[in-house]
Amino acid sequence: MQRKDSWLLPEGIEEVLPDEARHLENHRAKLLALFACWGYELVDPPLIDFLDSLLTGSGHDLALQTFKLTDQLSGEMLGVRADMTPQVAKIDAHNLKQEWPTRLCYVGTILHTRGDPLEKTRSPMQIGAELYGHAGKESDEEVICLMLDMLAMTGLLDVHLDLGHVGIYRALSKQAGLSSDQESELFDVLQRKAKPELQELMAGYAIDPDCKQMLMKLVELNGGKDTLSKAKLILANADESVKQALADLDSIANTLAQRLPNLPISFDLAELRGYHYHTGIVFAAFVPTVGREIARGGRYDNIGAIFGRSRPATGFSADLKLLSALSKQQYYIPRRDMIFAPYLSDTALSEKIRELRAQHKTVVQQLPGQVGSAQQLGCTAILEQVNEQWVVKPVA
Amino acid sequence: MQRKDSWLLPEGIEEVLPDEARHLENHRAKLLALFACWGYELVDPPLIDFLDSLLTGSGHDLALQTFKLTDQLSGEMLGVRADMTPQVAKIDAHNLKQEWPTRLCYVGTILHTRGDPLEKTRSPMQIGAELYGHAGKESDEEVICLMLDMLAMTGLLDVHLDLGHVGIYRALSKQAGLSSDQESELFDVLQRKAKPELQELMAGYAIDPDCKQMLMKLVELNGGKDTLSKAKLILANADESVKQALADLDSIANTLAQRLPNLPISFDLAELRGYHYHTGIVFAAFVPTVGREIARGGRYDNIGAIFGRSRPATGFSADLKLLSALSKQQYYIPRRDMIFAPYLSDTALSEKIRELRAQHKTVVQQLPGQVGSAQQLGCTAILEQVNEQWVVKPVA
Repeated sequence: MQRKDSWLLPEGIEEVLPDEARHLENHRAKLLALFACWGYELVDPPLIDFLDSLLTGSGHDLALQTFKLTDQLSGEMLGVRADMTPQVAKIDAHNLKQEWPTRLCYVGTILHTRGDPLEKTRSPMQIGAELYGHAGKESDEEVICLMLDMLAMTGLLDVHLDLGHVGIYRALSKQAGLSSDQESELFDVLQRKAKPELQELMAGYAIDPDCKQMLMKLVELNGGKDTLSKAKLILANADESVKQALADLDSIANTLAQRLPNLPISFDLAELRGYHYHTGIVFAAFVPTVGREIARGGRYDNIGAIFGRSRPATGFSADLKLLSALSKQQYYIPRRDMIFAPYLSDTALSEKIRELRAQHKTVVQQLPGQVGSAQQLGCTAILEQVNEQWVVKPVA
Repeated sequence: MQRKDSWLLPEGIEEVLPDEARHLENHRAKLLALFACWGYELVDPPLIDFLDSLLTGSGHDLALQTFKLTDQLSGEMLGVRADMTPQVAKIDAHNLKQEWPTRLCYVGTILHTRGDPLEKTRSPMQIGAELYGHAGKESDEEVICLMLDMLAMTGLLDVHLDLGHVGIYRALSKQAGLSSDQESELFDVLQRKAKPELQELMAGYAIDPDCKQMLMKLVELNGGKDTLSKAKLILANADESVKQALADLDSIANTLAQRLPNLPISFDLAELRGYHYHTGIVFAAFVPTVGREIARGGRYDNIGAIFGRSRPATGFSADLKLLSALSKQQYYIPRRDMIFAPYLSDTALSEKIRELRAQHKTVVQQLPGQVGSAQQLGCTAILEQVNEQWVVKPVA
């Protein structure tokens, strides 16, 4: 049966019309050029892949968000990518196999079965950059700086950066000897920042009181620069790895403050964005006009292990459609100037049109009997014959 | 269960690595710039849509090639686009709704459940241009010329053009009074150019002998310019629409011969490429090194009717991945020159790096303790401090 409303689109799925497509294409080119200037080479992972390749090390959330397909050729289960990061890690680990740091970037449409409650789209255009093969905080700094440059190029001058470190919660859970059930139960409560629930839950845990105290206090460790000094006191009895995590956060914040003195930075040590996936620093960028993060990233060491090679990795991603819409508010790019040419079988005219197009001018040629004048078509100039020469004249 | 061979990809699905991705991106930009110079505006139709929207007026083949998904939000059946042409027609008919000729172009990945026996890929990157709102042969000429310009920009100088017209078979079938079963039975035999089968099949049809003769002779009507004069004799008793189709083919061939005197043109009146879809002229471009068409198109009037607006339409499409690979054989684009910068906390160095990147130079910054020298990373230059100035020097 043919639907009556054939023009409706599924929820969260969009068509990009010429005005938006022009901005999207322009912004895409600008950001890829920026990534290239930092040494990040473009790759294009496949739109679909075997489901288990796509979901490797990614956790339950990605599995729920991934559309499944049956491969008619192999009978196996395929998925439509819901995140390109694991795909790019696979390219680093399996295809490129370099010993030294590898810098890659990508852009492409991903699909989500349900979307995010905060995001209206189920088909973002993911753009991102990844740095493989270096485990130190300096590579985290590099990708954060590149992300901030990307946002500056988008025309966003009021960006706010959030920093966290999933290693802190992970180390405290281990130190407290939480079972994996307890760890994910607690994770869930922390994610929702539900303090009363947290107290209730922790009351039932028979763990070392020091550890309990530290885990309870984690939700309070968010805010400005003093958060780190508060954390050093509160987490004084934590493992060495927690102290290292705090020192790394401190150092990254200092480097960023030097490079970008006006950048507001917040810390949130209970922020567990991408917990199942990330292994160290996590970060996100916000602007006041958008009620959710506009770019995000972090460290995710060893994701390539399943593809035959374990490598440290850090990177970020964003939705190019969102960035392009934000950029359009700042820098509107008008439609190209168009020259209207009459339809005539005249070699001199054909040559003039060819010459103008070779100079990157847009020439729209009339079609016999067509509706619409040069002006209605949006042309600002017209080709006219003056003294046997074809010349470009403004539309009267 | 985790597959052991996590690096394998499904058949006909590819990863695009940096060397190919660089060419693909470069060629994409060149072709979209060309389309823009002819007044074709970019649109980006959705990757998935309601299945019946995707399959509108397209026939059985596209339905078989379309991956199906269930929408978890609406419970309805979705498809992954297997052809972007109907999607762009929908944008013209439903979103833009212009009275005058509308020129649109697009590029994006499509998926095929099975692929084509001749094509190795199941995920081509479809690129194309469409012209809506004009029914005459002049719009067919325009899109053919643009397609040929696209191939010239790809570096292909030995292109061969095939012209046909599905209206001829359609009119002859109607004139002969074939039932729709007979029409598709005969269509199938003609597609396979199976002459003995054709004779056997036609022997069983109780139709006007003149019509029978004309339908039988259709498979012989292919070759060079004399094909059209032969056709005029053989199809002398055909309907007026057949004569108009032959006249249009003749006129288009003459226009092309004027513009591109060296272009070899063949005619094939039994070529029914996209028969269920096309309504008039059909065309395809070939090069000797590739065993199948490298670009194709034709007229497909009234496809927009289901979206609320019937418009004449003509256009073409190609696989950008294939074009990019062919172009790479002609014009190899080397990797960007890269400058290696040491890792130092030095404001003058940071400023120099920023300045070089702002000049569109690529600077790769060392990471503390990293493996790999400037040379191993592929850098051709290095930033060195000379008399307290940071200068770019060639790699020793």
